[in-house]
Amino acid sequence: MELVTVDDVRSAAARIEGTVVRTPLTAGPAGGPPFLLKPESLQPTGAFKLRGAANAVALLDARQRRRGVVTHSSGNHGQALAYAARAQGVPCTVVVPEGAAKVKVDRMRAWDARVVMAAPAERETVARGLERDEGLELVPPFDDDRVIAGQGTVGLEILEQSPEVTTIVLPVGGGGLASGVATAASAVHPGSVRVVGVEPELAAEAAESLRTGHLAAWPPEQTYRTMADGVRVCLSPRTFAHLSARLDEIVTVTEDEIARAVAALAHGARLVAEPSGALAAAALLAGRVPTVPGRAEATVAVVSGGNLDPELFARLVAGR
Amino acid sequence: MELVTVDDVRSAAARIEGTVVRTPLTAGPAGGPPFLLKPESLQPTGAFKLRGAANAVALLDARQRRRGVVTHSSGNHGQALAYAARAQGVPCTVVVPEGAAKVKVDRMRAWDARVVMAAPAERETVARGLERDEGLELVPPFDDDRVIAGQGTVGLEILEQSPEVTTIVLPVGGGGLASGVATAASAVHPGSVRVVGVEPELAAEAAESLRTGHLAAWPPEQTYRTMADGVRVCLSPRTFAHLSARLDEIVTVTEDEIARAVAALAHGARLVAEPSGALAAAALLAGRVPTVPGRAEATVAVVSGGNLDPELFARLVAGR
Repeated sequence: MELVTVDDVRSAAARIEGTVVRTPLTAGPAGGPPFLLKPESLQPTGAFKLRGAANAVALLDARQRRRGVVTHSSGNHGQALAYAARAQGVPCTVVVPEGAAKVKVDRMRAWDARVVMAAPAERETVARGLERDEGLELVPPFDDDRVIAGQGTVGLEILEQSPEVTTIVLPVGGGGLASGVATAASAVHPGSVRVVGVEPELAAEAAESLRTGHLAAWPPEQTYRTMADGVRVCLSPRTFAHLSARLDEIVTVTEDEIARAVAALAHGARLVAEPSGALAAAALLAGRVPTVPGRAEATVAVVSGGNLDPELFARLVAGR
Repeated sequence: MELVTVDDVRSAAARIEGTVVRTPLTAGPAGGPPFLLKPESLQPTGAFKLRGAANAVALLDARQRRRGVVTHSSGNHGQALAYAARAQGVPCTVVVPEGAAKVKVDRMRAWDARVVMAAPAERETVARGLERDEGLELVPPFDDDRVIAGQGTVGLEILEQSPEVTTIVLPVGGGGLASGVATAASAVHPGSVRVVGVEPELAAEAAESLRTGHLAAWPPEQTYRTMADGVRVCLSPRTFAHLSARLDEIVTVTEDEIARAVAALAHGARLVAEPSGALAAAALLAGRVPTVPGRAEATVAVVSGGNLDPELFARLVAGR
């Protein structure tokens, strides 16, 4: 399989400028080990996913632009695709599972997306049907080179903003973000910047896949127990190939560590992170990834998103 | 009185680069009126105050740098001065009222500041004593041209980041931020960018001062009722002169509106703001400052800081 290159990532960076926020590096939670944060929670849709979606939309040809795009993620990628498509004047359809949170559906509609309801198990089939019948361009959440290249711009920005960085820590779900960032880091600073992925213990499919060399998929009954709902998904052959070649290490964190990280990011770093978005900080705060004393700029944790239920957030910041 | 000029602000911007974060403009709370946010809560000390402190420290001469700086604010300015002084290798003393929150004292000590305890009413006297006896350079929280010029860099950045901006909304306490930003905006875009200040109804001393033309000071028994503890302070003759000449308007908000804005910034914009830091967003969300339909980039609210008691934050995001 041909992998995404750092030139693809560089081209993506030029393409998505103006649609995405160049997020700054900010201080990690006060009183903890020294590291910086890359708060992708501050993107207009609340997550890094906007980068990949904006790159995919920018790469459409004239005919695809007229017909529009479709996806079957109702989470951060669905929101990102709706936002990116509207920003570039392209029609967007999102296939949403019946029973999805009304706030998410309302937001996609506010960004002019057409929302199509489907039974949860039928979502991908319905999206592929629209691809075939209406000629829409399918933009998957991570199993896509355009998306991986877009997510990789997080890594390029970190390398520019902290030339002293030696470790980048980020969450791994489907592996799009990790594939893109590892592509950028391994090409720009071969051998001198480590990229470390983080998964919840309860959904550590990527860790198992990389350890055994075989793509693992855990049953939903198991992965649905983690509060990190954004990473309850396994790698695709495409992201598995990228991570096998380019990711340096993968570690896991417990649910308690995730909960404490959400609270620490709010109280100590003034950021609202969703559980999946707090995974990298959780690994650093729990000491599962080493830091360099006195040199916060050497270690950067990506805060990948900040979309979570207000009641869950209120409970986590209250330490309950 | 000679006022700070936009050239002073431009020089400050060059001086403080590297110490302060260039905060991005991010989306206002979803579902509300269209405006952007300038999240100064993401500065390493959690508030814009770092800009003024860093400028003041950078302007010291060699002898002052050796002897060090002193201030009598234990809040965001005290933290900012401690941080800025350490970043530039200058000794720092902060006079703290007996009974100050331990977390604040610990943080100033972590940044190598000497902490001197004093009775609350004696703070300024003790600081002036250290200025006289030890030759320390006093850096006041807002009544200082170096500090005003530093805070003005928030305005310069907004004008660069959103060339379409027509209204900048910000909190007014001692008036340092408003003086600096109004200086930048009125010089760079004379007549075309309005700067609007916001105060709590319970501490609306600046509004009264500007209306009557006389510097007003309300009794602490009154101003201490607002939860926006960062703005329980009145203007100085210096900031009064700047605001009289350059601020376009000042509006007030209720305690309920402030509380709702803290929750809206967390749930809708993924930012942790302290009550004072949420004042500008509160005024916009309550409709007290008009926005431009469909043009979020026309209106920017400064989120001035994010340092608040974790229990208060947990209560506000739970809507209690």
